[in-house]
Amino acid sequence: MEKHISSQFDAELNSISTRVLEMGGLVERQIQWAVQALLDEDSERAQQVLQVEREINELELGIDADLSTTIARRQPTARDLRFLIGISKTVGNLERAGDEAARIARMAASITESGHARRLPVAELRLAADLASGMLRRALDALARLDVDEALAIMRDDDRIDVEFNGFVRKLVTFMMEDARTISPSLDLLFVAKAIERIGDHAKNIGELIIYIVKGQDVRHAPLEQVETVVR
Amino acid sequence: MEKHISSQFDAELNSISTRVLEMGGLVERQIQWAVQALLDEDSERAQQVLQVEREINELELGIDADLSTTIARRQPTARDLRFLIGISKTVGNLERAGDEAARIARMAASITESGHARRLPVAELRLAADLASGMLRRALDALARLDVDEALAIMRDDDRIDVEFNGFVRKLVTFMMEDARTISPSLDLLFVAKAIERIGDHAKNIGELIIYIVKGQDVRHAPLEQVETVVR
Repeated sequence: MEKHISSQFDAELNSISTRVLEMGGLVERQIQWAVQALLDEDSERAQQVLQVEREINELELGIDADLSTTIARRQPTARDLRFLIGISKTVGNLERAGDEAARIARMAASITESGHARRLPVAELRLAADLASGMLRRALDALARLDVDEALAIMRDDDRIDVEFNGFVRKLVTFMMEDARTISPSLDLLFVAKAIERIGDHAKNIGELIIYIVKGQDVRHAPLEQVETVVR
Repeated sequence: MEKHISSQFDAELNSISTRVLEMGGLVERQIQWAVQALLDEDSERAQQVLQVEREINELELGIDADLSTTIARRQPTARDLRFLIGISKTVGNLERAGDEAARIARMAASITESGHARRLPVAELRLAADLASGMLRRALDALARLDVDEALAIMRDDDRIDVEFNGFVRKLVTFMMEDARTISPSLDLLFVAKAIERIGDHAKNIGELIIYIVKGQDVRHAPLEQVETVVR
């Protein structure tokens, strides 16, 4: 960001950015732990994910309160205002991504308890999970650097997760048809897949917000070709 | 809202409120049509839901742009600022509820095409769907009147949808175990149930935002008893 006449304002913006990145780091860790809990049948790990949720919620409330105070006190316009609005929406996306991680952890615990974990195609979700958590990590890096090219690259990757998700659902259907006893834990696994897909969506949304902050154009709902024109 | 010295500012706030309620009305209609498409196996209705999506997206972008302009021009503080921030988040919730309606419509079309619609427990979702769309309608009414008591009542109702959802999943599992041919369309129906549950969540979120606007307290993630204390 450019420097402001008020160095206090700069300090406020920096403090907010730092905490958003901290929140993002917690969400990333939540996702990795949740996936690990699933793959390793580790119920303790699943519990740890749920404990982090409280910390993330508190960060969300604190950052949002500071955003309001900063808007009221500094009366920002143009890019400063877009930055604060974009950060507010980013925080919402991070919190929802964290909710999805918590959902994965709960499903992981339920699948482990069912005793069917080894019969299910759990490992087939690893690629999608890696894609989604990679997208989120890159979105946070791109936000720190306000890098619109990287933001666009992240948006492009969302399709890959959707392809993985649809392929996974087809596999799961075959699986359930072959062994009816796995139907109930398979549904838990389906919700895990859905949660992973949604984490990718949140990363994509953060990409859109970075472009909004830097370019001043709201590219939500716009086709990718149009976003490319905005970024160039 | 209280009157402002600048009647132009009042006019801007009124115009924004009117369009948010208009957007909410469209989302409500989308939900009703999507559920109707499912229950009546009406693919044409499902198509209509998807056509409304574009209109809703445009309203979202337009309202968000006006919110930024109003914040930059009027430099609001206290309750005015909370109103604008609360409205911005409400718009996000409405858009996501509209996405869920579109998801229901796509699943309804897919279930109709599968030819298995009459074998599935489609009608069992009617109560949950009525609860969710009722919650959303009441949330919009409560927003128009900034009625915190009604907002609290809506938040209480969210549990009822969750109970319906969990019961439905159990029924669906039994169903799939009895007839493996219905597994694939049953998963579509499961995603419909999930979408309905999420619409309830969005209505609940709008309830929280109304309390934030009026009472100045962010009650997200707070237990219901604490919210009751804030409202009283």
